[in-house]
Amino acid sequence: MDSAIGMSTTFDFDSWVNQQLARVESALQDWVSDEAVADSEHHAPAELIAAMRYAVLDGGKRLRPLLVLATFDAVCGGLCEDYLSHEENADEAARRGAPDGVARSEKPSIAALRAACAVELIHAYSLVHDDMPCMDNDVLRRGKPTVHVQFGEAQALLAGDALQALAFELLTPDDASVGAGRQARLCRLLARSAGCAGMAGGQAIDLASVGQYLTESQLREMHKLKTGALLQASVMMGAACGETTQHAKQALLRFGAAIGLAFQVVDDILDVTADLATLGKTPGKDAQHDKPTYVSLMGLAAATAYAQQLKAQALESLAGSGLVNTQALQGLTHMVVDRCC
Amino acid sequence: MDSAIGMSTTFDFDSWVNQQLARVESALQDWVSDEAVADSEHHAPAELIAAMRYAVLDGGKRLRPLLVLATFDAVCGGLCEDYLSHEENADEAARRGAPDGVARSEKPSIAALRAACAVELIHAYSLVHDDMPCMDNDVLRRGKPTVHVQFGEAQALLAGDALQALAFELLTPDDASVGAGRQARLCRLLARSAGCAGMAGGQAIDLASVGQYLTESQLREMHKLKTGALLQASVMMGAACGETTQHAKQALLRFGAAIGLAFQVVDDILDVTADLATLGKTPGKDAQHDKPTYVSLMGLAAATAYAQQLKAQALESLAGSGLVNTQALQGLTHMVVDRCC
Repeated sequence: MDSAIGMSTTFDFDSWVNQQLARVESALQDWVSDEAVADSEHHAPAELIAAMRYAVLDGGKRLRPLLVLATFDAVCGGLCEDYLSHEENADEAARRGAPDGVARSEKPSIAALRAACAVELIHAYSLVHDDMPCMDNDVLRRGKPTVHVQFGEAQALLAGDALQALAFELLTPDDASVGAGRQARLCRLLARSAGCAGMAGGQAIDLASVGQYLTESQLREMHKLKTGALLQASVMMGAACGETTQHAKQALLRFGAAIGLAFQVVDDILDVTADLATLGKTPGKDAQHDKPTYVSLMGLAAATAYAQQLKAQALESLAGSGLVNTQALQGLTHMVVDRCC
Repeated sequence: MDSAIGMSTTFDFDSWVNQQLARVESALQDWVSDEAVADSEHHAPAELIAAMRYAVLDGGKRLRPLLVLATFDAVCGGLCEDYLSHEENADEAARRGAPDGVARSEKPSIAALRAACAVELIHAYSLVHDDMPCMDNDVLRRGKPTVHVQFGEAQALLAGDALQALAFELLTPDDASVGAGRQARLCRLLARSAGCAGMAGGQAIDLASVGQYLTESQLREMHKLKTGALLQASVMMGAACGETTQHAKQALLRFGAAIGLAFQVVDDILDVTADLATLGKTPGKDAQHDKPTYVSLMGLAAATAYAQQLKAQALESLAGSGLVNTQALQGLTHMVVDRCC
């Protein structure tokens, strides 16, 4: 515990975020490209790649990748540095022609970076499809024209589809940097959280709920799928890149559920309190579409208090997890909730 | 070789097809359902599941699943029966409370069935999105109203998205019936063939080619991605469920490329020669949309000869593969080409 407290006092969250964002942006730049997907037989068309890159490389907050990487840090505990230096040694050994066993060792931090980017691709594709005329019909996203406005509806549809496939490509590199067991586990977590009992399911409930009265429990159910499942999966995918005890895993599941819900409550609050410049997308959208939100259901003050309560729950789960290196996860929890209240 | 020749004379292709179709239909019925995806925390909304089932359980030809299963038969050689009886023994042993090691053994024929259904889900989702107003705007598919006509555009978009995710769920069961290495390999093959350097990429080229003059080589390039990649992946996923030599793998890659191209040439021929009742979808669509086809490029007679030539290439690849149990693959090759010529 002493060392945890010691680390906690010296941890610089802003530096950590900047460092991780730089890694994620650079990896996305590399991996969402024809060079990364092409082989001698198959190439991706330039226009489709352009639409995919436009959708992904647009200065999003990258909350999901940060959750993956922060959780990976937490489950590595003090071992992260060891992993990293081991990997550097492995690369060095590979350059020198070391025996196969060394050069081909697993690289958990590479697995975590791939997982981080894969989750972001799923998130990005969902925004592209969500913005389309048959869904939310939104023309502005992160301060730019949406993908279908820029590239046309058909290309937007295909770019979303291709981004989903690319997420699973990122998780299954054809080398030994990510072990087969980990590849399978990461695909499983991502597929379930993205599918009909996850994000896509939540969006279908959202569709059906326009103009309907929902109880708080129905609203929570919708958001647990629509945004919560992928946020929770981000946490569990980060954990899957390291090793965790069953106890820590349960605590992280609770943490993921709390932060997922908190994120949505905050989003609902910002939709009524923020302006376009702050939000980067059209504010007041929910009210305009007659969508039930935590604010419409509880009122602004109660929704704000609820967000604070969920933050406390998330932090409590971390404190009881037995994990010592949770500073980045704590920082993200504050970041998510404090942006509104 | 004697036993292979012996098997060849007694092989009943129609019975094989009927038996495999029954397995696939029953598995799709089970797996595209809330029961299959739900856990204690997450359920899929009924309307979305209904749209997904409508898209999948509609009497398609199931060519891709049959290719997976036929290739699995081919790489198993005479061992398939052993696998199956071993699996039955494992189930029996599990019922009797046998040691973990026996009950939890890998089940290659289950892996092949999951792979077969996963490929079909990808195919089904691509049809749903392809039929949407912003793409081909088609109202009829396999003799029924298309998904967006029946369920609305937004639900069709989400059903397609959720079917893609479900394909990867099917490949990553949380038990030992499919080994982690095989799960990872199957996800890798499927993701690449579905993505921007595969099916989605081919559709993007198709979009851009409307009203354009394409050379035969550009047309082949488009179809290699649009339909060829997933058909070839079906073959390679079947192979990945068993064990293959490098020589057989190369032969299967060539077989997959030839049958993929043959399928498209035949499709183009049928678009001008078949009527709605035979086709189950609107005929003459390509000409109407001013899309380049093998018929518009080569003329009907030359396209027909080309289909026959590709059939011969496919059969030649099988003959040179060193695999002895290829009767089902041969049968499928005839089935694909002989439906038109």
